[in-house]
Amino acid sequence: MKVERWGVFEIALQGKTDGNPFMDYEIRGTFSNENEKVTVDGFYDGQGVYKVRFMPSFEGEYSYVIDGSFADETTEGQFTASAPTGNNHGPVRVAHKYHLAYEDGTPHYSFGTTCYLFDLMDKEIIDQTFEELQKGYFNKMRFCILPKHYDYCLNDPPLFPYEGTPMDASVLTRENFYKYVGKAEGNDWDLTRFNPDYFRRHDENVKRLMDLGIEADMIVFHAYDRWGFSQMTMEENVRYLRYIAARYSAFRNVWWALANEYELMGHLAESDWEFLAQELTAHDPYHHLISIHNCESFYDYTKPWITHCSCQRCDHYKTTEDTEEMRVRYGKPVIWDEYGYEGDFPHCWGNFTPEEIVRRGWEALLRGGYPGHSETFRSEDDVIWWCHGGKLKGESAKRFKFMREFLEDVPGGGLKYGHLRDDLHFQWDDKVAVPEDPAYEGDYYFFYFSIWRPPFRQVWVDDETEFDVDVIDTYEMTVTPVGRFKGRFDVPLPGKQYMGIRLKRVKDK
Amino acid sequence: MKVERWGVFEIALQGKTDGNPFMDYEIRGTFSNENEKVTVDGFYDGQGVYKVRFMPSFEGEYSYVIDGSFADETTEGQFTASAPTGNNHGPVRVAHKYHLAYEDGTPHYSFGTTCYLFDLMDKEIIDQTFEELQKGYFNKMRFCILPKHYDYCLNDPPLFPYEGTPMDASVLTRENFYKYVGKAEGNDWDLTRFNPDYFRRHDENVKRLMDLGIEADMIVFHAYDRWGFSQMTMEENVRYLRYIAARYSAFRNVWWALANEYELMGHLAESDWEFLAQELTAHDPYHHLISIHNCESFYDYTKPWITHCSCQRCDHYKTTEDTEEMRVRYGKPVIWDEYGYEGDFPHCWGNFTPEEIVRRGWEALLRGGYPGHSETFRSEDDVIWWCHGGKLKGESAKRFKFMREFLEDVPGGGLKYGHLRDDLHFQWDDKVAVPEDPAYEGDYYFFYFSIWRPPFRQVWVDDETEFDVDVIDTYEMTVTPVGRFKGRFDVPLPGKQYMGIRLKRVKDK
Repeated sequence: MKVERWGVFEIALQGKTDGNPFMDYEIRGTFSNENEKVTVDGFYDGQGVYKVRFMPSFEGEYSYVIDGSFADETTEGQFTASAPTGNNHGPVRVAHKYHLAYEDGTPHYSFGTTCYLFDLMDKEIIDQTFEELQKGYFNKMRFCILPKHYDYCLNDPPLFPYEGTPMDASVLTRENFYKYVGKAEGNDWDLTRFNPDYFRRHDENVKRLMDLGIEADMIVFHAYDRWGFSQMTMEENVRYLRYIAARYSAFRNVWWALANEYELMGHLAESDWEFLAQELTAHDPYHHLISIHNCESFYDYTKPWITHCSCQRCDHYKTTEDTEEMRVRYGKPVIWDEYGYEGDFPHCWGNFTPEEIVRRGWEALLRGGYPGHSETFRSEDDVIWWCHGGKLKGESAKRFKFMREFLEDVPGGGLKYGHLRDDLHFQWDDKVAVPEDPAYEGDYYFFYFSIWRPPFRQVWVDDETEFDVDVIDTYEMTVTPVGRFKGRFDVPLPGKQYMGIRLKRVKDK
Repeated sequence: MKVERWGVFEIALQGKTDGNPFMDYEIRGTFSNENEKVTVDGFYDGQGVYKVRFMPSFEGEYSYVIDGSFADETTEGQFTASAPTGNNHGPVRVAHKYHLAYEDGTPHYSFGTTCYLFDLMDKEIIDQTFEELQKGYFNKMRFCILPKHYDYCLNDPPLFPYEGTPMDASVLTRENFYKYVGKAEGNDWDLTRFNPDYFRRHDENVKRLMDLGIEADMIVFHAYDRWGFSQMTMEENVRYLRYIAARYSAFRNVWWALANEYELMGHLAESDWEFLAQELTAHDPYHHLISIHNCESFYDYTKPWITHCSCQRCDHYKTTEDTEEMRVRYGKPVIWDEYGYEGDFPHCWGNFTPEEIVRRGWEALLRGGYPGHSETFRSEDDVIWWCHGGKLKGESAKRFKFMREFLEDVPGGGLKYGHLRDDLHFQWDDKVAVPEDPAYEGDYYFFYFSIWRPPFRQVWVDDETEFDVDVIDTYEMTVTPVGRFKGRFDVPLPGKQYMGIRLKRVKDK
């Protein structure tokens, strides 16, 4: 059997079905090659089938030993991990402190979207979602592992993560839905018995995302629940964590969002979150990216297990403009997974203009942070991108692709907010985006004017260096070369909002 | 001779002209009626004429004694202060802690504009300025007592405040003007001899503003100067302060702006400003409103001599949204005299869209603060409202009048940001503007949606109270009644930015 480096090697064994296989039996695999020896948990997948999944981090020959407590002897074998192909660059890691790169070194500029329940929809809608994703607007999908109960998202999912029966959903209305948030009453679950069909949905769609080169930012816990899954005991939480870690860790594109809006699960203290984080990371042998997303106050992102800041804007007015402060405070990549959505929702986070959504994106990226997208347009068919996926309806989505293409052109992989010089009085404040990598200092400058409409911008780097200058309309997605300049010069601008000026140093012949 | 209560009584005496009358002679007047006895300084007005001005704070018979050090005996007389007429409501005072009212109790809702040098222009342009002011968009004019040197404002004024000769202005360009800021070189002034013709300009135009019912917010000191007036000694500063106090205090519409962007006069410490404030207030017997305007960091508005916060936005993105915090921190009226201007300047403070300027205005007023306007459109004739007055060119000005008319309709005089109820989950944050005066609690609510575009807003005050509901388009300046409601109801909105909803309690028959 062959598998690519950073691919998924899976072995399935038939085992016992008596009692409760989820509780009564364990399965483990140890995988060895010349570079690594890794022991991973397997999981019970129903119908007497036990599975072990493994992601080889190296090329070459691997041998393995599978040890199931349901069997008298172990199972052994070998496989070859071949060179990665296509868009397989390995898992995404932190790079240059504030940025990201795949394990093979290829930079990853994170431009994510959110469809909380996209893979719990009918196949037709899931296919629509993937049609949209194929357009390449986004390279990360943020979604829930557990079902979600919220305004505009009140239908039961087609299946549930545990054996049992849910509360009667027919009582729900926009007026009363909130009373049920975080309540377990009316539900009857056996929390010792997972529903493998439910979790298999995620297997399939995480792989489908992986094949498209899209990261799967999996939300482990969240408060928007009417089934009691947000109210499980610590023992039940740990059982769940170990099951998803065993099931999904071998997919290279997995990121862990330990919680969405952690504070809303008020019964969990910070010590509980720290404990759950330890449990999850201890059972993820591949050290996937992991964070925890806030509602109104940031988690302490300085905790060592947190690889990046997964932020929701705390201030309603000033959002991604705080990226620089966040980088200084936390010293980690700053990803604004939620700063408001384009749409027509009554909720204050869900009715922004596309212009404002795109502007907030640029404010993030020019400071060396990364924006996140979703859409909240109410819909006759109750299919809303933010929760269900389906079809994109807004104007902002395609503009995230333009942002990524803009960043891909920055030397050294990623920007930071820097200082040009302060003797051009009152042109603007003297901040300008420059390459994060000091090896490219002086090669590239980007001025972004956001809501401002200067008629021109005076630039003066020094008297010798020549620059090729482009005027960029960040909303209209146009790049207009205006010529080659040196010394002190005015760059004319159209007097519109959302404009930028890019300077690229002319390389010596 | 007759004068109105809060009018200007002036008496002019012929006196000595030998030596330096500004330095060698003094004149003082003491004015008495049954309610007050006030001693005021007079001033030398040139050609041997010494003047004393007095504003009677009461109606009825006044007697006075004028004592000039140039004369051997005093001059005595009487006059009658009659009832105020027309728009004479007296000087503006602080009312209800965070708001303003004229001395006769009439509320004053401050909607100011800035034309720094409007009254140093040719008569034709001054007349244009007053034509615009007659439209009633603004009820306060902020301007400089001393001339101003700055980008787009480099021409010499037609006359100067002191005897002497200015530096050669022909050397100035947009590239080099900044080198001359705050420098005295090349000027030759006798700072012991004021130029009465210069100060008479302000007499005339302060009165002209007064007759229009417009407050004169007079900037005493500022840094944008190439003549050395920003670099005078403390003794010279005090001489100047006493001269303008004697000259202008009797005009009821005067407000004192001790400085514009005080920090930019770096040679003055806070103790210097405190000393100058004491000098000015000690020589203003009428206790006019007084503040000190910042550039990048607010002055300590808790100082007892400061009547109100005259703010320039410190953050480039979040400006008047901080009004509530400012009220809490300083406990005084919050007037945003500068949060950016509509125009096409290259400077970051001078190229905002009218929509953003108006939005920032509403963010201030709904929190119980007051916005300030100006315009910075570059112009062939170098006449720019922000500095020179002339003709208004923008879209925001007329919308300040709509704001004032909106406020005039609020019961009790002025709004504050309040709390409605928090059981309407996620409609919006639960903040709403309500009357400052607790006597009107429950009578009036105003929701403002700023950049947000909710398709409707659910409202629920209680199940009994009936409200007449209007939808207000704050940018288009329309008020659309949508009916009479009680209990829990949805108010439909057009899904545009800058909308608001107003609820007025139906009064019992």
